[in-house]
Formats: sequence, structure tokens, C-alpha cells
Amino acid sequence: MTADGVGPATEPSDAWLAERFLALWDGLAAIGHLPSGATERLPWTAEDRAARDWFADTATARGLTVETDRNGNLWAWWPGPGDAAIATGSHLDTVPGGGAWDGALGVVSGFLAIDLLRATGVAPTRPIVVVAWTEEEGARFGVATLGSRLATGVVDAASMRERVDAAGVTFASAVAALGIDPDAMGSDPGRLARLHAFVELHVEQGRALQPLGRALATGTGIDPHGRWRVVLEGSGDHAGTARLEDRHDPMLVLAALIKAARRAAARHGGVATVGRVIVQPNGSNVVPGQVLAWLDARALEEDTVRAIVATTRRSVERAGRSEGVRVTITEESWTPAIRFDPGLRARIEAILHDAGMPSVAVSTAAGHDAGVLDAHLPTAMLFVRNPTGISHAPAEGASIEDALIGVRALAAVLADLAAGP
Amino acid sequence: MTADGVGPATEPSDAWLAERFLALWDGLAAIGHLPSGATERLPWTAEDRAARDWFADTATARGLTVETDRNGNLWAWWPGPGDAAIATGSHLDTVPGGGAWDGALGVVSGFLAIDLLRATGVAPTRPIVVVAWTEEEGARFGVATLGSRLATGVVDAASMRERVDAAGVTFASAVAALGIDPDAMGSDPGRLARLHAFVELHVEQGRALQPLGRALATGTGIDPHGRWRVVLEGSGDHAGTARLEDRHDPMLVLAALIKAARRAAARHGGVATVGRVIVQPNGSNVVPGQVLAWLDARALEEDTVRAIVATTRRSVERAGRSEGVRVTITEESWTPAIRFDPGLRARIEAILHDAGMPSVAVSTAAGHDAGVLDAHLPTAMLFVRNPTGISHAPAEGASIEDALIGVRALAAVLADLAAGP
Repeated sequence: MTADGVGPATEPSDAWLAERFLALWDGLAAIGHLPSGATERLPWTAEDRAARDWFADTATARGLTVETDRNGNLWAWWPGPGDAAIATGSHLDTVPGGGAWDGALGVVSGFLAIDLLRATGVAPTRPIVVVAWTEEEGARFGVATLGSRLATGVVDAASMRERVDAAGVTFASAVAALGIDPDAMGSDPGRLARLHAFVELHVEQGRALQPLGRALATGTGIDPHGRWRVVLEGSGDHAGTARLEDRHDPMLVLAALIKAARRAAARHGGVATVGRVIVQPNGSNVVPGQVLAWLDARALEEDTVRAIVATTRRSVERAGRSEGVRVTITEESWTPAIRFDPGLRARIEAILHDAGMPSVAVSTAAGHDAGVLDAHLPTAMLFVRNPTGISHAPAEGASIEDALIGVRALAAVLADLAAGP
Repeated sequence: MTADGVGPATEPSDAWLAERFLALWDGLAAIGHLPSGATERLPWTAEDRAARDWFADTATARGLTVETDRNGNLWAWWPGPGDAAIATGSHLDTVPGGGAWDGALGVVSGFLAIDLLRATGVAPTRPIVVVAWTEEEGARFGVATLGSRLATGVVDAASMRERVDAAGVTFASAVAALGIDPDAMGSDPGRLARLHAFVELHVEQGRALQPLGRALATGTGIDPHGRWRVVLEGSGDHAGTARLEDRHDPMLVLAALIKAARRAAARHGGVATVGRVIVQPNGSNVVPGQVLAWLDARALEEDTVRAIVATTRRSVERAGRSEGVRVTITEESWTPAIRFDPGLRARIEAILHDAGMPSVAVSTAAGHDAGVLDAHLPTAMLFVRNPTGISHAPAEGASIEDALIGVRALAAVLADLAAGP
């Protein structure tokens, strides 16, 4: 950049990039933005349809070729579809009460990286494709990273069709309402075979970068994690007339679960969360008959996760015996440790170092489509600093400055990977 | 009763009474009976309508005069409407997941007491009236003992009309669907002025009688109780990526609330319950941003209830400070101690003693229409032994033998009160 702040034609200025970033960002961020400040784009809804339209309009305005694959994943090809492609992107759906950045930043950055490469006169040897994977959060039908799991065949499409959301709508009818044929969904090896590598950029979901004063990280992998369903069966009773010593109150065992999970996570060095609870009948003047709760546990090592859950289980079962409440804990999902392709990661770190944007290495405790695709092709992740560290809530985010660093980093990586072998 | 088990015409046998009891009971208990074993008759529903039809059919079959008052309360008069009446009865609605006995036993026993008095040739000087008060549990629109509160003017009818149930149905439209005019609801002093006394028979809601080997109790009053709304505001975050030390997880403060309430109740000598919880956004992979909970506390003395809540509040506020979670606790309802008319209670105890069915005296920690009416006319309560002590759940109940003792006791009381001054 020259001293007057206007860059040469081949090196767009931050002002040029920021203007384009905000134009794209504002269009997407308005979809599903609630008065509470939260962003809600649940899959196969009107908000999802609007986000898909935004994707198609954005790609079309750039002359990219847009495709919707059989699983509802969106593809925007530059200069057009082809083999040995370099894929980037992320997802457009959110959790309920979520933030604006999770997923969205990766898709927006993919489009802007192409803008930047074009403006600097890069002509890639390999096609570059921006992908928006379908239903990454799993907030509606209970299966996270669904689009990539369907494409890789990890999830059987037939098993999804009769699943229902909280309102009783089947997956098949929800999908069909957006013009996707549920019977055509499933493993898509031909499409995946066209990809040489996948690089997913994502807003950081913890607070590793802020204390280090760094804007960028490369992902080393995805930490092992799992979810357990906890059923606590006591005896329903009257809140006024049942004596304390006669009660079998599952709520007291829930309290033990919440405290034990936190204690076990701190002791073993991981995280554990009780984020979802269903109380039956949930009346203020009724001792509940049953409480359902979900335990989410994650750590760097699989053994640590197992230890957190085992320690928690012992405490909860002890509390159950003490209160006369029956405790059943079952594993609902398990994701083993994933280590991204070491060769690709080393190459990306070198590219960023050479481009004057050195990264630090972090692993993430969140699931991502990159983790699903890792078994099928080389994948990598880039993370952009999130000053609050908060994720899945309105306070998640990045500064514009850091977002632009992310775009420049992604552009450098794509240019290098798309240039040759 | 004679040795052959067939009583004289003026003293019906237990077999005669049991047959009539079961005929009435089975008809009512079938309404809202669920496969789970629970009974659900929420107010202003199809089940409520069926229960009202049962009441009218039962009264008509006996030649009683049936009325529905402006608040939807049902009245069945013997021999017909009149002044200085002796009222009995209870309610027909239930909590969700409730039992078959709460409320129902009082209404069924009222009709059977009239059968018994007729069979024994009693001709009352004062009219006797069986009342089924509307929406006693408050499970749908949040106001317990609504029928008696509307009639006494304790609750303003206008304040109810726009209230909505969990499905968003307004009180006014729910009431109108059962043919009651919501605009005509409200204080009904003329009707209450016709009553000389109200005696409510109810299945016991604790386990005081079983250890004493006694079938009957008279109520001394209703213990003071209240409900407090607890709002716990933390920070929503990602269950995988938010470090434990960065979290402001309201679920941990909920755990402190549950444990503190139990501890405080045990220490001060009362009961406390957290029976209702709403978690936002309630996702298994999300640290919740907010938890709402309700604290129900009751004891023999008002000061004890206040002490339980104060002790609990201190613990919860301390936990909130420690977790960085904002705690707000507000009183949502408060019912002071109610002592039933001592003269009426002494008279009832004497009647029962003379009839060879002596009672013990208990206070109850549950609210009842008798408690609301107590400020307007002499009221009393009779309780029938509940071997499990469980209430508001399918396991509540009484033996047929005890239920028949309850009918005979109620008949003796009504006969005496209806005979004169």
C-alpha cells in the first residue's frame, strides 16, 4: 500500500475491501436478525430460503456458476465447475438465539477472497468453489454437520426422512418445502471426488487469540466430544403437602448433575455443560416426576472426556440413590478426535508466514464440516480472533479489521493452493 | 347394621353405599384418564366440558336443581335453591399429570351424602348444595382457586380476560368456548350471601393420618405459602469452546437454588420446591443465557416461610456473584395463614365424635376454595386418609373403605348443620 492510503490496482486497499465486506455482510446479517439482537436462521425455513437466495444472488453478481447439490448444499464456482478444485466456505444456518458470525464469516470471506484474487489479477489453475453446507448446527432435526455427513454417507438419508422437529414437521416435508427432493438425498462421492482440498474459515469460538494479541489461527484438529442423555425418574407430588423426607425429587439430582459436571471438567481439564433440561410436568406447585437433561463434554484427549463423564456419572448415581431417584445415562453422540491433514496445515502456515500474516495453531472443541470431510480429502481451518470468545450467542464476533485480515489470509491460501499441485 | 349384613331401610349398608360410590366415581374418573395412569382435566377443555356434563347428569338423576353461575361454578341444590344453605363440594379440574382424587372426591362425596341422607329419611331445614368450583388448580391460566376468587371479588375478572395459556389461547376465548360469557364474570355477593357455611371434603394431601391409623381429619386452616419467580441472567455461549473460567452459566446458579431451597426448608422446618424451570435457549450444545425458575415455599408459620425464602435468597445471590450471573427474585403470590372458623370446627368435631367417627385435626399446606371463602362465611374442611401421601400425581388416593367413611362423616355433618341454627 502507498503512503497516501490508495493501493495500486493489483493490491486493493483496506477501504476497498471493507466496503465490499460490509455490503455483503449487511445483506446476510439482516436475514433472521431478531429484535433481541440474536440471529436465527434455522434450516429449511423462510430465513434459510432467504439466505440461499442471498448466496445465489452474490454468486451470480460475480459471474460464478451456482449449483445446489442433491443434499441442498450450495456451490459457487470460479471460474466454473471443474476437477481438483480448492473448496472454501462454511454454513449459513444458526442455532436458536445464535450470533451473526458463526458460519456466515466463512461464506462471506470465500466470496471476498475471490474478489480480492480477481482484483489482483490472479488466474487460478484449479477451480475455486465457495460452499455453504446445509444444516451445520443440527438445531432443528438433531444432526449436526448434516450436509457434509449426507454427502460423505456418514449419515444415511433414509434415517433422516421421518425425523420430526419440535413442531412435529418431518425432515422430508421440511426439505421438500425448499424444493429439495428428500428421496434424492444421500452419499455423493462423485461430487466430493472433484475436490482437491477444503479450507474452512470460521470466527474463533473461544478466546485463545485475544490474550496472544494475534488475529489468525490455523486449526490443528477437532477435539473429541460427545453428548449424553440423562433421565432422572422420581415421584411426582404436591409441592405443599409432600414432606421433604417422603420426596423423590429428580430436581435435586439435576442440581447434583450440574455441579458434578462442572467439577469433573475442572478436575480432569476439559469442559462439560448441561444446556438443555426438560422437566415433567414443570408446574410451580408440583414436585416433578421426571427430569431429562443433556450432558455435553469435550476435552483435548478422548480419555479425558471419558473421565469427565465417568466421574460425573458416579456423582449423579450417588445423588440418585440418596434421593430415591432412578438415574439412566446413555451416550447419544460421540465424535472422536480429528487431526487435520498435517501436510496441508504446514503448507498453509508457510503461506501465511510468507504473506506477513503469521498464524498460531489451535485445536477446536466445536464440530465443523471440515471435520466430517477430513476422512475424504485434505481439510484445514482458519480462525479469526473473537474478542469476547463467546459463541452461539449474539455477543460472538470479530472486528472488521480482523475480518479483513481473514479475507486476505484466505485469499493467499486459495491462490497458492489453486496455483498448482 | 344387622348381623346378616343388610341394614334397615334407614341405615344403608356399606355394600349399598359402595355400589353407588363406584358408579359415580367410575363415570367421573374415566374423563381425562390417560394411558400413563394420570388424570388430566384442564379447565375449559373438552375434558372440563365432559366433567360438567357428568355433574349435571348426576344432579338431574337425583332430582336436584342444577345451576351454572356467572363464573362457571356449578351448583346442585337439594331440595332446591334457598337461603342459609349448607354448601359442600370441591372441584373437578386437575393439574397436568395429576391424580383422580384431588377435588373429585369432594364432589362425589357431596352427592353421595345427599343420597345417604335421603335414604335415612332426613328432611333438612336448610337447603344443601353441592358446588364444583371452577379452575381450582390454576394449571392453565396461572390463578389457583379461580372460581371462588372471582365470586368473592379477590380476583378482578377484567384482569383475567387477556391472560393466555401456554398455547396462546386467551382466557376470554377459552371460557366462551364452554358457553360462559367472560364479560359477565366477577364478584357475586348475592350468591355467596345465600350460604350459611361451606364444608369441603378432600383427599388428604400429606401422610399425617396413615401413621396414626385414622381415616378422618378436620382442617384447622391453610398454612401460609407463596411463590417466587427467580430470573438468572448469565451469558449464552458455546458448550465446546467457552472455557470454564470465562463462563457465566445460569445453570450452576439454578443448581445452587435447588439445593439451597431444600436445605433452608429442612433447617427452618417447612417445605420448598423448585418444580418449574425454563432454560433459554435450551440447546444441548449451548451454555444457556438465561434460566427462569419458580420457588414454592410453605410452612406452619408465616415467619418460617419468610425465613426459608430469605436463606435461599442469600445462597442464590452468593452463587450468582461467584458465577457472574445476575439474580432477580420477585414474589409472585403470597397466601397468608388461614384459620377456619373455630366454632364451626368444634361443632363438626363434636358431630363426628357423636357419630362414632372421631377425627384428628390437621392444617394443610395446599390452597383450597375453602380458604378463599373463609373470609366471607364459616368454612371447614374434612380430609380422608391418603396412604401414599402423594398428591397431584397418579399415586394419590384413598381406600374405598375410607372414602365411604368420608361420605358418612360428611352426611352426618350436613344433616346436623342443615337441621338448624
